[in-house]
Amino acid sequence: MKKSIKETIMGMGSNLDRRDFLKGALAVGAGLALHQAIAKAEEPIGVAKPGNVAGLTAPPVNVVRAGFVGVGGRGTGDMIEFLKCDGVEVNAVCDIVPAKVDCAAGIVEKKQHRKPVGYSSGPEDFKRLCQRDDIDSVFICTPWEWHVPMAVYAMQCGKHAFMEVSAAMNIADCWQLVETAEKTRKHCMMLENCCYGESELMVLNMVRQGVFGDLTHGEAGYIHDLRDLKLSGQGEGAWRTQWSVDHNGNLYPTHGLGPVAQYMNINRGDRFDYLTSMSSPAMGLHQASIKKFGPNHPMSKIDYKCGDMNTTIIKTAKGRTIMVQHDTTSPRPYSRINLISGTLGTFSGYPDRIALSPNSHEWQEVEEYRKKYRHPLIAKAGEKAKGAGHGGMDFIMMYRLVDCLHRGLPLDMDVYDAAAWSCIVECSEKSVANRGNSVDIPDFTRGAWKTTLPLGIVS
Amino acid sequence: MKKSIKETIMGMGSNLDRRDFLKGALAVGAGLALHQAIAKAEEPIGVAKPGNVAGLTAPPVNVVRAGFVGVGGRGTGDMIEFLKCDGVEVNAVCDIVPAKVDCAAGIVEKKQHRKPVGYSSGPEDFKRLCQRDDIDSVFICTPWEWHVPMAVYAMQCGKHAFMEVSAAMNIADCWQLVETAEKTRKHCMMLENCCYGESELMVLNMVRQGVFGDLTHGEAGYIHDLRDLKLSGQGEGAWRTQWSVDHNGNLYPTHGLGPVAQYMNINRGDRFDYLTSMSSPAMGLHQASIKKFGPNHPMSKIDYKCGDMNTTIIKTAKGRTIMVQHDTTSPRPYSRINLISGTLGTFSGYPDRIALSPNSHEWQEVEEYRKKYRHPLIAKAGEKAKGAGHGGMDFIMMYRLVDCLHRGLPLDMDVYDAAAWSCIVECSEKSVANRGNSVDIPDFTRGAWKTTLPLGIVS
Repeated sequence: MKKSIKETIMGMGSNLDRRDFLKGALAVGAGLALHQAIAKAEEPIGVAKPGNVAGLTAPPVNVVRAGFVGVGGRGTGDMIEFLKCDGVEVNAVCDIVPAKVDCAAGIVEKKQHRKPVGYSSGPEDFKRLCQRDDIDSVFICTPWEWHVPMAVYAMQCGKHAFMEVSAAMNIADCWQLVETAEKTRKHCMMLENCCYGESELMVLNMVRQGVFGDLTHGEAGYIHDLRDLKLSGQGEGAWRTQWSVDHNGNLYPTHGLGPVAQYMNINRGDRFDYLTSMSSPAMGLHQASIKKFGPNHPMSKIDYKCGDMNTTIIKTAKGRTIMVQHDTTSPRPYSRINLISGTLGTFSGYPDRIALSPNSHEWQEVEEYRKKYRHPLIAKAGEKAKGAGHGGMDFIMMYRLVDCLHRGLPLDMDVYDAAAWSCIVECSEKSVANRGNSVDIPDFTRGAWKTTLPLGIVS
Repeated sequence: MKKSIKETIMGMGSNLDRRDFLKGALAVGAGLALHQAIAKAEEPIGVAKPGNVAGLTAPPVNVVRAGFVGVGGRGTGDMIEFLKCDGVEVNAVCDIVPAKVDCAAGIVEKKQHRKPVGYSSGPEDFKRLCQRDDIDSVFICTPWEWHVPMAVYAMQCGKHAFMEVSAAMNIADCWQLVETAEKTRKHCMMLENCCYGESELMVLNMVRQGVFGDLTHGEAGYIHDLRDLKLSGQGEGAWRTQWSVDHNGNLYPTHGLGPVAQYMNINRGDRFDYLTSMSSPAMGLHQASIKKFGPNHPMSKIDYKCGDMNTTIIKTAKGRTIMVQHDTTSPRPYSRINLISGTLGTFSGYPDRIALSPNSHEWQEVEEYRKKYRHPLIAKAGEKAKGAGHGGMDFIMMYRLVDCLHRGLPLDMDVYDAAAWSCIVECSEKSVANRGNSVDIPDFTRGAWKTTLPLGIVS
């Protein structure tokens, strides 16, 4: 019979059930040893297995030769960061809007004193860009629904595909990315810039050094009041809003989730197992529209499906939990939450604060930790990142990507990450539509997560 | 065929599907009107219907004559706050530990110059207290598993039952409370002191005045590192820890959830519909035990079942969502989260901050709102509450309860609230045990939530 706590306290030393308590203690020790081993590893130690592309490498190159598809606000921004790197060329740009192609080409010309070829003959013209012999990498910064067909075509043309977030908007498309990457053995990376935030990199470094002990729980989010954008009909507002009309779930999970997935070694020792999701009512866009346009305006007659706030809980194979939120409608300050909790401490973002045993009863400022745990990438490229997009992380991401391609290293994020992080869109939608019942999350690695080694801390 | 956003933007004024847009606009207006009407109501307008005790009143009394069952740390604290009120008597105290009865009796004697009768002849001696003719109200501050049998017995003896949180630890016990309260028509209130926090009352007042617009989402929690307590074997540690051995879910939901439920008019216009819940691994207590006692100690051989962090999402009948967390193990600062989000703004606790349209892109300090929206209860009794338990809210709660009993008013929290807030324990446990699939939350009001009016703001 199981002993109660009371019985244990009262009968200490008496005839207890035997239990291999050492198992727990050893597991703790082994975990720390692994942390340390990984922290010491100079580079991620991944070796792609047959049929699997975890740890995939491509031959080193002196120059990364790129084409950019989609050079609106975000694509142009990515291209500018890319152009700041040494050993790069932009040889082609593509957009359905000719003026955007001209503008982007002008920026490139100014930098490399040679105009890239421009493509803007309709929505399929990206194919001509992908077919070019003078590019190895295609950057895809188009509306969400275009990421997969473009990435798949690029890989089929023998190019690496780097696409903006989210990589895909449904599970079938995630599989298509995985299968194409495995077949073509080309890099397929989602440009998740938030994995390169200074705080996120610092936390990853701290996690690797065991500062938080065994991780148990994380929180991530994309809380960003985009009502003005979504009602503008301009830029992203021209297409992004439609997703709020047609879908109800977490439409944009990866900015917050990507870093937390890296802390937890998702696809590299753990994986997303299942999730449950609920959305609040869809009220904010409708009310904002009435306020902005009046009740008789066509925009005010649209039925929005996407709840203002979506809350999802993910369970990992190792039993950890991740709470992920999406709210681009409510009047709230921006946050990606960025919380990680373990048996020795907790970090939370927005604002950054930390609590470590035994002084964990009050949040501490993180400033004293910033130097001690500064990620080597920041130490190396942080100075050059100043003033770059999104607090510098856009440049750090490009700098690291280009460096890996130059040196023929595996990338920090692979196609399995792109798929696992992005598939939350459809998985959450399914759960929301089914009274919050849980939905299994596909294992895009087909079991390879068990043996793929965690992301290292670059030297 | 449904029009896309793009089509709408491009074809504004063209042949659109007709839609009663006024419905939305009117709903907004009606909601505000209701808010204002409620805000103006001097007292909660609830009238108990046959078989239902929402809005139940008892005849006014000049003196509230109480017995206290369980006078450990918490019970003694409650009793001290109660004794600060005018028009009260403590005529009996009960505890299984005679020394605690003596101590409590001494405190009472000092105040009212007359010793209460003491009961400490075993675990059933509370019954003799309940049978006394010189008490009308029984305060129950015993371990969780004792709340229901004691409250039920007290009501059956014709006494009001006021019990500590949580009121009950499983659904069957919640129903027993409801059925006994309906049969005996006695007050059955959970002593949820956190509903009387200065911030919580202010937010309730703001919600009633429509400051946040239509509510969409709330967040609540009980994040309190109790590892030392739970490994102490002393006080609550002598019995509370056992729950972490036997159960995995949100073991203590009401401190954070109660106030959010009041913001959202749960059981008074809305109700909890279903929930989903997941727990992180149970690691923290085991590791803390090894650190404190060494690996060979019996406490370090206990199998804890309760995950360190439990995250639950509740869906209400009106479609709102509430995220509720429970973590009494991880190294983290205390928080009840206390977040409420609506179409016009968001409030978040820990630390308190607010964002209101159109200046909602940055959190604002709440100080300027504290005076404007100070709850009348705080204005009336806040001075006297200074120095009282838990920042004063323990006294405010008692002051309000005693005042309602003196004046024969309905109480702010009724047996349906006690049941709905407490049943989250078992509902979350069921969901955790079933891969996070959703669990229906009983409607303890049996439909009366649709017509019961919201809690007013006392004048």
